[in-house]
This record gives sequence, C-alpha cells and structure tokens, in this order.
Amino acid sequence: MVNLQDYIRDINDFPKRGVVFKDITPLLASKEASEACLNGLVDLLEGQKVDKVVGIESRGFFFGMLLAQRLNAGFVPIRKSGKLPFDTIKEPYSLEYGMDVLEMHEDAIKKGEKVLLHDDVLATGGTAKAACKLIEKLGGEVVQCNFIIELGFLRGGDKLNRYEIRPLISY
Amino acid sequence: MVNLQDYIRDINDFPKRGVVFKDITPLLASKEASEACLNGLVDLLEGQKVDKVVGIESRGFFFGMLLAQRLNAGFVPIRKSGKLPFDTIKEPYSLEYGMDVLEMHEDAIKKGEKVLLHDDVLATGGTAKAACKLIEKLGGEVVQCNFIIELGFLRGGDKLNRYEIRPLISY
Repeated sequence: MVNLQDYIRDINDFPKRGVVFKDITPLLASKEASEACLNGLVDLLEGQKVDKVVGIESRGFFFGMLLAQRLNAGFVPIRKSGKLPFDTIKEPYSLEYGMDVLEMHEDAIKKGEKVLLHDDVLATGGTAKAACKLIEKLGGEVVQCNFIIELGFLRGGDKLNRYEIRPLISY
Repeated sequence: MVNLQDYIRDINDFPKRGVVFKDITPLLASKEASEACLNGLVDLLEGQKVDKVVGIESRGFFFGMLLAQRLNAGFVPIRKSGKLPFDTIKEPYSLEYGMDVLEMHEDAIKKGEKVLLHDDVLATGGTAKAACKLIEKLGGEVVQCNFIIELGFLRGGDKLNRYEIRPLISY
C-alpha cells in the first residue's frame, strides 16, 4: 500500500522566504506512487462521467492528462497569458501583488459538456476559480474540481463554495 | 483509423510573424487521437525498456506522463530556469537572441538508468540537446528521443546525431 505523503517533499522558502512548497516530483518519479495517485483521483469522481478534463498550467498537466486518458475524456489545457496559439477567452486572477490572466482556447469546450477541473495543489483558490469561470463561459458544467493536495489553512475552498472540491490529501 | 495530422492545426504568425505554429490542442481534446498518438509513440520504442521518461516543459508533459504510465516507468520534468523547487543541475541552450537555461532535479535520474526523452515538437534541437546533456550528467543513458512532430526543414536532427531520434510525424 503506497502512502502518497511519503512521495511529497517539503521545500522550505520556495518560491520565496517563509513558504513551504509541496514538491510532487518524487511522486512523478515513482510508477507505483503515480498509479496510486491516479487511482485515488479517479475514485474521487465516484463513477461520475466527464467529457473533458481541464488541467491548469503546468503541474496540472501531469495528472490531468492521465485522468483524461483513464476517464475516456478529452484534455484541455488552461495556460497563462500569451501561451496558447489559437483564439482564446481570458479570465483575470489575483496574485499576491497585482493580477495575471488565465486563457483557454475558445473552441476547447462545447456547451453542455461535463468537465473535471484538475490541478496539483489547491492553495488560495484564485486560479481554480478563474479556471471554473472560463469553463462556464463556454457553457461547460464543472462537475468536480480535484487536487492532489489541499493546503487547508489557506481556505481556498471558501472561494470555490459553488463547486464540488475534492482533494486527495489535506494539510 | 485516426490520421493524426487531422488533429494538428497550423497557426500562422505564432508566436511571432512568419512562424507557422503546430497546435496540438485539437489532438489533446480528442480521446481517440490522443490514444492513437500514445500508441504511435510507444511503437517507436520497438519494445525497448526504459526506467524513466523525461518530458520538457511544458508541452512535453502531456504525452511524457502518458508514456511513463504506459511504459511502467517514472516521469521526470525538465523545466525552465527557477521553476523546480529542489536542488537542480543546469544546462544552457540557445534562443534566437541570447541564451536560457534548462534545469532538472539532481536526484531525478540514477546512474545507469535507461531514459526516453520526449517533447511535442523537434524544431532546431537546442532544447532537446540540452535535455540530453542533463540526463547524461546524472549518468542516465538516452535510449531514444521521440517527438510527436519533427519540423525537418529546421534540421534539428543534425544537432542530435549522437542520439536515436524518432518523430511520429515529419513536416
């Protein structure tokens, strides 16, 4: 039995002083841990069917793509400003100082599609909320937002209380 | 039978005037096309076993992670400067104007491990060559570099002639 927390490494003072960063690269490097993580994320859906999995740049791409494959769904990347080549819709989100913009291709989701939003970590919830808005702008239905890790003390779930939020591990 | 080229979209003048960008997001959005692409990439290995799949930020993460899963291997991300949280090794590579640096965690690969390098597109070969050097610095053996797309007219393969280069589609 794999204990996923054994494969998540605390990095002090990254990306800046005072922050403890949860590094999932040991998990990615282990076939057994990645498989267990993927199975755990799939189980969170409790059989709910989805048409698209949306992953947020760039650590949301790892398990987002595996989830899409496993769930027999298409995959859609949400990226930071200027990275997507085709016509996009945009949504601002707050950073600690100032704002940035998330983008999604305007043809990425069809009206009425059931969408799973995935990212590696739920922190303040700002990017996840902006991502949900992008999905809804195109007429998609966010059936769940799942995360490998929730940093509960940052209360990101409060910002996302309209959605079903499911983390695999809470700190 | 899926024709992958039907799922790759030409975007003119991205990221800048005069460049025709190969957009793989229609491929990602299609479960059938993604499955066919993954199967094609696996077939390029002709049964060669690998211990690790290395994917280059960030479009190399999509199929890099699927390849690792399918090949029963671990996954290792190579990222741009300052993105990886743990101790890294670094390798410079040329951009059109100036240089940038690729990084890999110093514990990502063990001596003697067989490594598949994956990225979405082989263009000038600069990032792939730097990635191979990082793998070799840690004692890994690059058994193949595979790509969804090779832009043959940019002659990236010339820079990588020490390695086995296998693209799925050549333009």
